[in-house]
Amino acid sequence: MNILLTNDDGIYADGIRALYNSLKEVGDVSVVAPDTERSAVGHAITLSDPLRVKDVKRDGKFFGYATTGTPADCVKLAIRSLLKKKPDLIVSGINLGPNVGYSVLYSGTVSGATEGAILGIPSFAISLATFTNPDYSFAAKFAKKLAKQIIKNKGLPKGTLLNVNIPAISQKEIKGVRIVKQSERAIEERFDKREDPHKRTYYWLTGEIIESDNKEDADIETIRKKYVSITPIHCDMTNYGFIDELKKWCISS
Amino acid sequence: MNILLTNDDGIYADGIRALYNSLKEVGDVSVVAPDTERSAVGHAITLSDPLRVKDVKRDGKFFGYATTGTPADCVKLAIRSLLKKKPDLIVSGINLGPNVGYSVLYSGTVSGATEGAILGIPSFAISLATFTNPDYSFAAKFAKKLAKQIIKNKGLPKGTLLNVNIPAISQKEIKGVRIVKQSERAIEERFDKREDPHKRTYYWLTGEIIESDNKEDADIETIRKKYVSITPIHCDMTNYGFIDELKKWCISS
Repeated sequence: MNILLTNDDGIYADGIRALYNSLKEVGDVSVVAPDTERSAVGHAITLSDPLRVKDVKRDGKFFGYATTGTPADCVKLAIRSLLKKKPDLIVSGINLGPNVGYSVLYSGTVSGATEGAILGIPSFAISLATFTNPDYSFAAKFAKKLAKQIIKNKGLPKGTLLNVNIPAISQKEIKGVRIVKQSERAIEERFDKREDPHKRTYYWLTGEIIESDNKEDADIETIRKKYVSITPIHCDMTNYGFIDELKKWCISS
Repeated sequence: MNILLTNDDGIYADGIRALYNSLKEVGDVSVVAPDTERSAVGHAITLSDPLRVKDVKRDGKFFGYATTGTPADCVKLAIRSLLKKKPDLIVSGINLGPNVGYSVLYSGTVSGATEGAILGIPSFAISLATFTNPDYSFAAKFAKKLAKQIIKNKGLPKGTLLNVNIPAISQKEIKGVRIVKQSERAIEERFDKREDPHKRTYYWLTGEIIESDNKEDADIETIRKKYVSITPIHCDMTNYGFIDELKKWCISS
Protein backbone atom coordinates (compact mmCIF):
# COMPACT_ATOMS: atom_id res chain seq x y z
CA MET A 1 0.00 0.00 0.00
CA ASN A 2 1.10 3.57 -0.78
CA ILE A 3 0.95 5.91 2.17
CA LEU A 4 1.36 9.69 2.17
CA LEU A 5 2.38 11.43 5.39
CA THR A 6 2.03 15.07 6.31
CA ASN A 7 1.81 17.12 9.52
CA ASP A 8 1.74 20.68 10.82
CA ASP A 9 4.77 20.52 13.12
CA GLY A 10 7.01 20.54 10.04
CA ILE A 11 9.02 17.89 8.19
CA TYR A 12 11.82 17.95 10.79
CA ALA A 13 9.52 17.10 13.71
CA ASP A 14 10.01 13.92 15.70
CA GLY A 15 6.34 12.92 15.37
CA ILE A 16 6.41 12.49 11.59
CA ARG A 17 9.68 10.53 11.78
CA ALA A 18 8.16 8.11 14.29
CA LEU A 19 5.18 7.69 11.96
CA TYR A 20 7.46 7.13 8.96
CA ASN A 21 9.54 4.45 10.69
CA SER A 22 6.44 2.59 11.83
CA LEU A 23 4.40 2.80 8.61
CA LYS A 24 7.24 1.83 6.28
CA GLU A 25 6.87 -1.67 7.75
CA VAL A 26 3.45 -1.95 6.07
CA GLY A 27 3.75 0.10 2.88
CA ASP A 28 5.62 2.49 0.61
CA VAL A 29 5.71 5.77 2.48
CA SER A 30 6.01 9.24 0.91
CA VAL A 31 6.35 12.41 2.97
CA VAL A 32 5.20 15.87 1.85
CA ALA A 33 5.16 18.27 4.79
CA PRO A 34 5.63 21.96 5.64
CA ASP A 35 9.25 23.15 5.87
CA THR A 36 8.58 24.72 9.29
CA GLU A 37 5.89 24.55 11.94
CA ARG A 38 2.40 25.53 10.72
CA SER A 39 0.27 25.01 13.82
CA ALA A 40 -3.25 26.43 14.09
CA VAL A 41 -3.35 27.25 10.39
CA GLY A 42 -6.81 25.71 10.13
CA HIS A 43 -7.75 24.58 6.66
CA ALA A 44 -5.68 27.31 5.03
CA ILE A 45 -4.52 27.01 1.43
CA THR A 46 -2.06 29.18 -0.43
CA LEU A 47 -3.60 31.00 -3.38
CA SER A 48 -1.70 34.29 -3.63
CA ASP A 49 1.84 32.88 -3.49
CA PRO A 50 3.79 30.20 -5.30
CA LEU A 51 4.83 27.08 -3.42
CA ARG A 52 8.44 25.95 -3.26
CA VAL A 53 9.50 22.35 -2.76
CA LYS A 54 12.79 20.88 -1.63
CA ASP A 55 14.15 17.41 -0.94
CA VAL A 56 14.83 16.66 2.70
CA LYS A 57 17.21 14.07 4.10
CA ARG A 58 16.84 12.66 7.59
CA ASP A 59 19.05 10.04 9.21
CA GLY A 60 21.38 10.30 6.22
CA LYS A 61 18.88 9.40 3.49
CA PHE A 62 16.03 10.88 1.46
CA PHE A 63 13.04 11.39 3.75
CA GLY A 64 10.57 13.46 1.75
CA TYR A 65 9.56 16.82 0.28
CA ALA A 66 9.37 20.00 2.33
CA THR A 67 7.05 22.72 1.00
CA THR A 68 6.49 26.37 1.84
CA GLY A 69 2.76 25.66 2.16
CA THR A 70 0.27 24.51 4.77
CA PRO A 71 -0.65 20.85 5.46
CA ALA A 72 -3.64 21.18 3.10
CA ASP A 73 -1.31 22.60 0.41
CA CYS A 74 1.08 19.68 0.96
CA VAL A 75 -1.65 17.11 0.38
CA LYS A 76 -2.98 18.89 -2.72
CA LEU A 77 0.52 19.27 -4.15
CA ALA A 78 1.43 15.65 -3.38
CA ILE A 79 -1.66 14.27 -5.11
CA ARG A 80 -1.78 16.70 -8.03
CA SER A 81 1.93 17.02 -8.81
CA LEU A 82 4.62 15.34 -6.73
CA LEU A 83 3.57 11.71 -6.36
CA LYS A 84 3.58 9.31 -9.27
CA LYS A 85 0.82 7.16 -7.76
CA LYS A 86 -2.26 8.28 -5.82
CA PRO A 87 -1.82 7.08 -2.23
CA ASP A 88 -4.13 4.46 -0.73
CA LEU A 89 -3.98 6.23 2.63
CA ILE A 90 -2.99 9.61 4.07
CA VAL A 91 -1.81 9.95 7.66
CA SER A 92 -1.27 13.37 9.24
CA GLY A 93 0.81 13.64 12.41
CA ILE A 94 1.91 12.60 14.90
CA ASN A 95 0.91 15.97 16.30
CA LEU A 96 2.63 17.33 19.39
CA GLY A 97 -0.43 18.10 21.52
CA PRO A 98 -4.05 16.91 21.42
CA ASN A 99 -6.55 17.89 18.74
CA VAL A 100 -9.87 17.55 20.50
CA GLY A 101 -13.11 19.55 20.72
CA TYR A 102 -13.14 22.74 18.68
CA SER A 103 -9.37 22.42 18.15
CA VAL A 104 -10.35 20.19 15.24
CA LEU A 105 -11.30 23.40 13.41
CA TYR A 106 -7.98 25.15 14.12
CA SER A 107 -5.62 22.24 13.63
CA GLY A 108 -3.29 22.07 10.66
CA THR A 109 -2.72 18.38 11.35
CA VAL A 110 -6.42 17.60 11.11
CA SER A 111 -6.70 19.75 7.97
CA GLY A 112 -4.06 17.59 6.25
CA ALA A 113 -6.36 14.61 6.71
CA THR A 114 -9.44 16.69 5.83
CA GLU A 115 -7.86 17.59 2.49
CA GLY A 116 -7.24 13.88 1.91
CA ALA A 117 -10.91 13.14 2.57
CA ILE A 118 -11.96 15.94 0.18
CA LEU A 119 -9.77 14.36 -2.49
CA GLY A 120 -11.39 10.96 -1.88
CA ILE A 121 -8.49 9.22 -0.13
CA PRO A 122 -8.92 7.39 3.22
CA SER A 123 -7.21 9.63 5.77
CA PHE A 124 -6.59 10.00 9.46
CA ALA A 125 -4.98 12.55 11.76
CA ILE A 126 -3.14 11.35 14.85
CA SER A 127 -2.14 13.45 17.85
CA LEU A 128 -0.34 12.77 21.12
CA ALA A 129 -1.96 14.50 24.08
CA THR A 130 1.08 16.23 25.54
CA PHE A 131 3.18 19.29 24.74
CA THR A 132 6.24 18.16 26.69
CA ASN A 133 8.55 15.11 26.62
CA PRO A 134 6.61 13.28 23.92
CA ASP A 135 7.09 9.54 23.54
CA TYR A 136 5.65 8.72 20.13
CA SER A 137 6.30 4.97 20.23
CA PHE A 138 2.81 3.73 21.12
CA ALA A 139 1.12 6.31 18.85
CA ALA A 140 3.31 5.21 15.93
CA LYS A 141 2.48 1.55 16.58
CA PHE A 142 -1.21 2.34 16.83
CA ALA A 143 -1.08 4.27 13.53
CA LYS A 144 0.27 1.15 11.83
CA LYS A 145 -2.51 -1.00 13.25
CA LEU A 146 -5.19 1.52 12.23
CA ALA A 147 -3.73 1.84 8.72
CA LYS A 148 -4.13 -1.90 8.26
CA GLN A 149 -7.71 -1.82 9.61
CA ILE A 150 -8.70 0.98 7.23
CA ILE A 151 -7.35 -0.90 4.21
CA LYS A 152 -8.96 -4.15 5.40
CA ASN A 153 -12.32 -2.37 5.74
CA LYS A 154 -11.97 -0.86 2.25
CA GLY A 155 -11.52 2.73 3.31
CA LEU A 156 -13.84 5.26 4.88
CA PRO A 157 -17.15 6.86 3.81
CA LYS A 158 -16.88 9.64 1.22
CA GLY A 159 -15.67 12.90 2.76
CA THR A 160 -14.99 11.30 6.17
CA LEU A 161 -11.67 11.11 8.00
CA LEU A 162 -10.68 9.79 11.42
CA ASN A 163 -9.33 12.05 14.15
CA VAL A 164 -7.23 9.98 16.56
CA ASN A 165 -5.95 11.21 19.93
CA ILE A 166 -3.53 9.19 22.04
CA PRO A 167 -3.16 9.73 25.82
CA ALA A 168 0.45 10.48 26.71
CA ILE A 169 0.98 7.43 28.90
CA SER A 170 2.74 4.12 28.44
CA GLN A 171 1.10 1.37 26.39
CA LYS A 172 0.57 -0.67 29.56
CA GLU A 173 -1.57 2.08 31.07
CA ILE A 174 -3.78 2.54 27.96
CA LYS A 175 -7.21 1.09 28.74
CA GLY A 176 -8.44 0.60 25.18
CA VAL A 177 -9.95 2.41 22.21
CA ARG A 178 -13.22 4.31 22.05
CA ILE A 179 -15.14 5.65 19.06
CA VAL A 180 -16.53 8.97 20.24
CA LYS A 181 -17.81 12.36 19.11
CA GLN A 182 -16.04 15.72 19.06
CA SER A 183 -16.37 17.47 22.45
CA GLU A 184 -18.35 20.67 22.57
CA ARG A 185 -15.88 22.88 24.33
CA ALA A 186 -12.15 22.89 24.43
CA ILE A 187 -10.55 26.29 24.58
CA GLU A 188 -10.72 29.14 27.03
CA GLU A 189 -8.58 32.03 26.03
CA ARG A 190 -7.70 35.65 26.62
CA PHE A 191 -5.29 38.19 25.18
CA ASP A 192 -2.25 39.59 26.96
CA LYS A 193 -2.12 43.30 26.15
CA ARG A 194 1.54 44.36 26.21
CA GLU A 195 3.81 47.19 25.20
CA ASP A 196 6.80 46.67 22.92
CA PRO A 197 10.21 48.36 23.46
CA HIS A 198 9.00 51.21 21.19
CA LYS A 199 5.94 51.81 23.41
CA ARG A 200 3.53 50.36 20.90
CA THR A 201 0.72 48.07 22.04
CA TYR A 202 0.44 44.46 20.94
CA TYR A 203 -1.84 41.55 21.84
CA TRP A 204 -0.88 37.93 22.34
CA LEU A 205 -3.33 35.05 22.54
CA THR A 206 -2.91 33.04 25.72
CA GLY A 207 -4.73 31.09 28.42
CA GLU A 208 -5.39 28.09 26.26
CA ILE A 209 -6.95 25.68 28.71
CA ILE A 210 -8.54 22.51 27.57
CA GLU A 211 -11.89 22.23 29.23
CA SER A 212 -14.10 19.20 29.02
CA ASP A 213 -17.85 19.11 28.68
CA ASN A 214 -17.36 15.93 30.76
CA LYS A 215 -19.20 13.84 28.25
CA GLU A 216 -18.16 10.20 28.39
CA ASP A 217 -18.81 9.72 24.68
CA ALA A 218 -16.64 12.67 23.59
CA ASP A 219 -12.93 13.02 22.83
CA ILE A 220 -11.64 15.12 25.77
CA GLU A 221 -13.08 12.91 28.51
CA THR A 222 -12.04 9.77 26.60
CA ILE A 223 -8.33 10.57 26.59
CA ARG A 224 -8.57 11.80 30.18
CA LYS A 225 -9.91 8.34 31.07
CA LYS A 226 -6.80 6.83 29.42
CA TYR A 227 -8.48 5.54 26.25
CA VAL A 228 -7.40 6.21 22.69
CA SER A 229 -10.17 8.34 21.13
CA ILE A 230 -11.20 8.01 17.49
CA THR A 231 -13.70 10.50 16.10
CA PRO A 232 -15.07 10.19 12.57
CA ILE A 233 -15.09 13.73 11.16
CA HIS A 234 -16.76 14.79 7.94
CA CYS A 235 -16.42 17.72 5.58
CA ASP A 236 -20.15 18.38 5.36
CA MET A 237 -20.66 21.00 8.06
CA THR A 238 -24.42 21.36 7.43
CA ASN A 239 -26.50 21.34 10.61
CA TYR A 240 -29.29 19.18 9.15
CA GLY A 241 -31.20 19.26 12.42
CA PHE A 242 -31.78 23.00 12.06
CA ILE A 243 -32.88 23.12 8.40
CA ASP A 244 -36.60 22.56 9.05
CA GLU A 245 -36.67 25.05 11.91
CA LEU A 246 -34.94 27.67 9.77
CA LYS A 247 -37.43 27.13 6.94
CA LYS A 248 -40.18 28.20 9.36
CA TRP A 249 -38.57 31.64 9.68
CA CYS A 250 -39.94 32.39 6.18
CA ILE A 251 -37.05 34.61 5.15
CA SER A 252 -37.87 36.46 1.92
CA SER A 253 -35.58 38.18 -0.55
CA MET B 1 -28.50 45.79 18.90
CA ASN B 2 -24.68 45.66 18.88
CA ILE B 3 -23.24 44.22 15.70
CA LEU B 4 -19.64 43.21 15.02
CA LEU B 5 -18.42 43.01 11.43
CA THR B 6 -15.40 41.20 10.06
CA ASN B 7 -14.32 39.74 6.71
CA ASP B 8 -11.37 38.16 4.93
CA ASP B 9 -11.02 40.65 2.07
CA GLY B 10 -9.58 43.17 4.53
CA ILE B 11 -10.93 46.29 6.24
CA TYR B 12 -10.53 48.42 3.11
CA ALA B 13 -12.72 46.16 0.95
CA ASP B 14 -15.93 47.47 -0.58
CA GLY B 15 -17.97 44.52 0.71
CA ILE B 16 -17.51 45.34 4.39
CA ARG B 17 -18.27 49.02 3.78
CA ALA B 18 -21.56 48.13 2.08
CA LEU B 19 -22.40 45.91 5.06
CA TYR B 20 -21.49 48.68 7.50
CA ASN B 21 -23.65 51.27 5.79
CA SER B 22 -26.63 48.96 5.67
CA LEU B 23 -26.40 47.50 9.20
CA LYS B 24 -25.82 50.82 10.96
CA GLU B 25 -29.49 51.53 10.15
CA VAL B 26 -30.50 48.77 12.59
CA GLY B 27 -27.80 48.80 15.28
CA ASP B 28 -24.49 49.98 16.68
CA VAL B 29 -21.87 48.59 14.35
CA SER B 30 -18.23 47.83 15.25
CA VAL B 31 -15.67 46.67 12.72
CA VAL B 32 -12.63 44.52 13.51
CA ALA B 33 -11.10 43.14 10.33
CA PRO B 34 -7.75 42.08 8.84
CA ASP B 35 -5.52 44.93 7.63
CA THR B 36 -5.06 43.21 4.25
CA GLU B 37 -6.69 40.37 2.33
CA ARG B 38 -6.66 37.01 4.14
CA SER B 39 -8.52 34.79 1.69
CA ALA B 40 -8.44 31.00 2.00
CA VAL B 41 -6.90 31.17 5.46
CA GLY B 42 -9.38 28.59 6.73
CA HIS B 43 -9.96 28.68 10.44
CA ALA B 44 -6.41 29.84 11.13
CA ILE B 45 -5.51 31.58 14.38
CA THR B 46 -2.28 33.33 15.28
CA LEU B 47 -0.46 31.71 18.19
CA SER B 48 3.23 32.29 17.48
CA ASP B 49 3.08 36.03 16.79
CA PRO B 50 1.66 39.07 18.51
CA LEU B 51 -1.28 40.89 16.95
CA ARG B 52 -1.15 44.58 16.16
CA VAL B 53 -4.24 46.78 15.99
CA LYS B 54 -4.75 50.16 14.37
CA ASP B 55 -7.64 52.58 13.95
CA VAL B 56 -8.92 52.91 10.41
CA LYS B 57 -10.83 55.82 8.91
CA ARG B 58 -13.03 55.47 5.86
CA ASP B 59 -15.06 58.19 4.21
CA GLY B 60 -13.38 60.69 6.51
CA LYS B 61 -14.43 59.18 9.83
CA PHE B 62 -13.56 56.35 12.22
CA PHE B 63 -14.57 53.05 10.62
CA GLY B 64 -13.06 50.33 12.77
CA TYR B 65 -9.98 48.40 13.90
CA ALA B 66 -7.58 46.74 11.48
CA THR B 67 -5.55 43.83 12.86
CA THR B 68 -2.58 41.85 11.62
CA GLY B 69 -4.52 38.64 12.26
CA THR B 70 -6.97 36.36 10.48
CA PRO B 71 -10.78 36.76 10.59
CA ALA B 72 -10.95 34.25 13.49
CA ASP B 73 -8.27 36.30 15.33
CA CYS B 74 -10.29 39.47 14.71
CA VAL B 75 -13.41 38.00 16.29
CA LYS B 76 -11.51 36.61 19.29
CA LEU B 77 -9.70 39.90 19.82
CA ALA B 78 -12.89 41.95 19.45
CA ILE B 79 -14.78 39.89 22.01
CA ARG B 80 -11.95 39.34 24.48
CA SER B 81 -10.26 42.75 24.34
CA LEU B 82 -11.38 45.50 21.99
CA LEU B 83 -15.14 45.82 22.43
CA LYS B 84 -16.71 47.16 25.60
CA LYS B 85 -19.91 45.17 25.10
CA LYS B 86 -20.34 41.64 23.76
CA PRO B 87 -22.08 41.92 20.38
CA ASP B 88 -25.57 40.53 19.85
CA LEU B 89 -24.67 39.51 16.32
CA ILE B 90 -21.56 38.94 14.18
CA VAL B 91 -21.65 39.35 10.41
CA SER B 92 -18.70 38.34 8.24
CA GLY B 93 -18.47 39.66 4.67
CA ILE B 94 -19.63 40.66 2.20
CA ASN B 95 -17.18 38.30 0.57
CA LEU B 96 -16.06 38.89 -3.00
CA GLY B 97 -16.84 35.46 -4.50
CA PRO B 98 -19.09 32.60 -3.40
CA ASN B 99 -18.40 30.35 -0.40
CA VAL B 100 -20.19 27.16 -1.30
CA GLY B 101 -19.47 23.43 -1.09
CA TYR B 102 -16.09 22.55 0.39
CA SER B 103 -15.03 26.22 0.09
CA VAL B 104 -16.75 26.59 3.45
CA LEU B 105 -13.72 24.81 4.94
CA TYR B 106 -11.18 27.10 3.24
CA SER B 107 -12.96 30.42 3.63
CA GLY B 108 -11.69 33.07 6.00
CA THR B 109 -15.05 34.85 5.77
CA VAL B 110 -16.92 31.77 6.94
CA SER B 111 -14.35 31.21 9.70
CA GLY B 112 -15.05 34.70 11.10
CA ALA B 113 -18.66 33.62 11.63
CA THR B 114 -17.57 30.17 12.85
CA GLU B 115 -15.49 31.80 15.56
CA GLY B 116 -18.55 33.81 16.56
CA ALA B 117 -20.58 30.61 16.87
CA ILE B 118 -17.82 29.00 18.97
CA LEU B 119 -17.96 32.01 21.29
CA GLY B 120 -21.74 31.66 21.60
CA ILE B 121 -22.78 34.69 19.52
CA PRO B 122 -25.35 34.45 16.68
CA SER B 123 -23.31 34.81 13.49
CA PHE B 124 -23.59 34.65 9.75
CA ALA B 125 -21.24 34.85 6.78
CA ILE B 126 -22.43 36.49 3.59
CA SER B 127 -20.84 36.17 0.14
CA LEU B 128 -21.61 37.56 -3.29
CA ALA B 129 -21.22 34.97 -6.06
CA THR B 130 -18.94 36.90 -8.40
CA PHE B 131 -15.28 37.83 -8.58
CA THR B 132 -15.75 40.75 -10.98
CA ASN B 133 -17.76 43.99 -10.96
CA PRO B 134 -19.48 43.31 -7.65
CA ASP B 135 -22.66 45.19 -6.82
CA TYR B 136 -23.12 44.68 -3.07
CA SER B 137 -26.36 46.64 -2.75
CA PHE B 138 -28.85 43.76 -2.63
CA ALA B 139 -26.54 41.61 -0.46
CA ALA B 140 -26.17 44.48 2.03
CA LYS B 141 -29.93 44.96 2.15
CA PHE B 142 -30.50 41.26 2.62
CA ALA B 143 -27.95 41.17 5.46
CA LYS B 144 -29.98 43.82 7.28
CA LYS B 145 -33.18 41.85 6.87
CA LEU B 146 -31.53 38.62 8.07
CA ALA B 147 -29.96 40.38 11.06
CA LYS B 148 -33.43 41.46 12.18
CA GLN B 149 -34.82 37.94 11.67
CA ILE B 150 -32.05 36.38 13.76
CA ILE B 151 -32.65 38.77 16.65
CA LYS B 152 -36.43 38.30 16.37
CA ASN B 153 -35.98 34.51 16.52
CA LYS B 154 -33.71 34.83 19.56
CA GLY B 155 -30.50 33.75 17.90
CA LEU B 156 -29.29 30.45 16.51
CA PRO B 157 -28.67 27.00 18.04
CA LYS B 158 -25.44 26.63 20.03
CA GLY B 159 -22.40 26.29 17.78
CA THR B 160 -24.41 26.98 14.60
CA LEU B 161 -23.91 29.82 12.12
CA LEU B 162 -25.56 30.68 8.82
CA ASN B 163 -23.65 30.67 5.54
CA VAL B 164 -25.39 32.97 3.07
CA ASN B 165 -24.62 33.17 -0.65
CA ILE B 166 -26.14 35.81 -2.92
CA PRO B 167 -26.36 35.36 -6.70
CA ALA B 168 -24.68 38.26 -8.50
CA ILE B 169 -27.80 39.52 -10.27
CA SER B 170 -30.16 42.42 -9.70
CA GLN B 171 -32.76 42.24 -6.94
CA LYS B 172 -35.50 42.00 -9.57
CA GLU B 173 -34.01 38.79 -10.95
CA ILE B 174 -33.65 37.08 -7.53
CA LYS B 175 -36.28 34.35 -7.30
CA GLY B 176 -36.34 33.96 -3.51
CA VAL B 177 -34.49 32.38 -0.59
CA ARG B 178 -33.79 28.70 0.00
CA ILE B 179 -32.53 26.92 3.11
CA VAL B 180 -30.20 24.24 1.77
CA LYS B 181 -27.26 21.99 2.63
CA GLN B 182 -23.59 22.41 1.75
CA SER B 183 -22.83 20.93 -1.71
CA GLU B 184 -20.57 17.93 -1.87
CA ARG B 185 -18.14 19.13 -4.46
CA ALA B 186 -16.93 22.53 -5.41
CA ILE B 187 -13.31 22.74 -6.41
CA GLU B 188 -11.30 21.15 -9.18
CA GLU B 189 -7.71 22.22 -9.15
CA ARG B 190 -4.25 21.61 -10.48
CA PHE B 191 -0.80 23.12 -10.02
CA ASP B 192 1.08 25.10 -12.62
CA LYS B 193 4.71 23.99 -12.47
CA ARG B 194 6.87 26.95 -13.50
CA GLU B 195 10.44 28.16 -13.47
CA ASP B 196 11.47 31.45 -11.85
CA PRO B 197 14.03 33.88 -13.40
CA HIS B 198 16.73 32.07 -11.40
CA LYS B 199 15.79 28.69 -12.94
CA ARG B 200 14.22 27.39 -9.77
CA THR B 201 10.93 25.50 -9.87
CA TYR B 202 7.79 26.73 -8.20
CA TYR B 203 4.18 25.57 -8.10
CA TRP B 204 1.04 27.69 -8.23
CA LEU B 205 -2.46 26.47 -7.43
CA THR B 206 -4.86 27.09 -10.29
CA GLY B 207 -7.83 25.70 -12.17
CA GLU B 208 -10.35 26.53 -9.50
CA ILE B 209 -13.61 25.59 -11.15
CA ILE B 210 -16.79 25.48 -9.21
CA GLU B 211 -18.51 22.24 -9.99
CA SER B 212 -21.97 21.35 -8.80
CA ASP B 213 -23.21 18.00 -7.64
CA ASN B 214 -26.44 19.28 -9.24
CA LYS B 215 -28.40 18.75 -6.08
CA GLU B 216 -31.43 21.04 -5.88
CA ASP B 217 -31.26 21.17 -2.09
CA ALA B 218 -27.60 22.27 -1.99
CA ASP B 219 -25.89 25.65 -2.16
CA ILE B 220 -24.20 25.61 -5.59
CA GLU B 221 -27.31 24.67 -7.55
CA THR B 222 -29.42 27.07 -5.47
CA ILE B 223 -27.45 30.18 -6.42
CA ARG B 224 -27.22 28.95 -9.99
CA LYS B 225 -31.04 28.85 -10.04
CA LYS B 226 -31.03 32.53 -8.91
CA TYR B 227 -32.06 31.94 -5.29
CA VAL B 228 -30.29 33.24 -2.20
CA SER B 229 -28.89 30.18 -0.41
CA ILE B 230 -28.72 29.92 3.37
CA THR B 231 -26.95 26.92 4.89
CA PRO B 232 -26.89 26.33 8.64
CA ILE B 233 -23.34 25.22 9.45
CA HIS B 234 -22.20 23.81 12.76
CA CYS B 235 -18.86 23.41 14.48
CA ASP B 236 -19.43 19.79 15.43
CA MET B 237 -17.79 17.93 12.55
CA THR B 238 -18.54 14.46 13.95
CA ASN B 239 -19.96 12.07 11.35
CA TYR B 240 -22.53 10.52 13.70
CA GLY B 241 -23.83 8.23 10.97
CA PHE B 242 -20.49 6.39 10.87
CA ILE B 243 -19.93 5.91 14.63
CA ASP B 244 -21.81 2.59 14.93
CA GLU B 245 -20.19 1.18 11.81
CA LEU B 246 -16.73 2.14 13.07
CA LYS B 247 -17.41 0.48 16.43
CA LYS B 248 -17.88 -2.81 14.56
CA TRP B 249 -14.26 -2.63 13.36
CA CYS B 250 -13.23 -3.64 16.91
CA ILE B 251 -10.02 -1.62 16.92
CA SER B 252 -7.88 -2.56 19.91
CA SER B 253 -4.98 -0.71 21.51
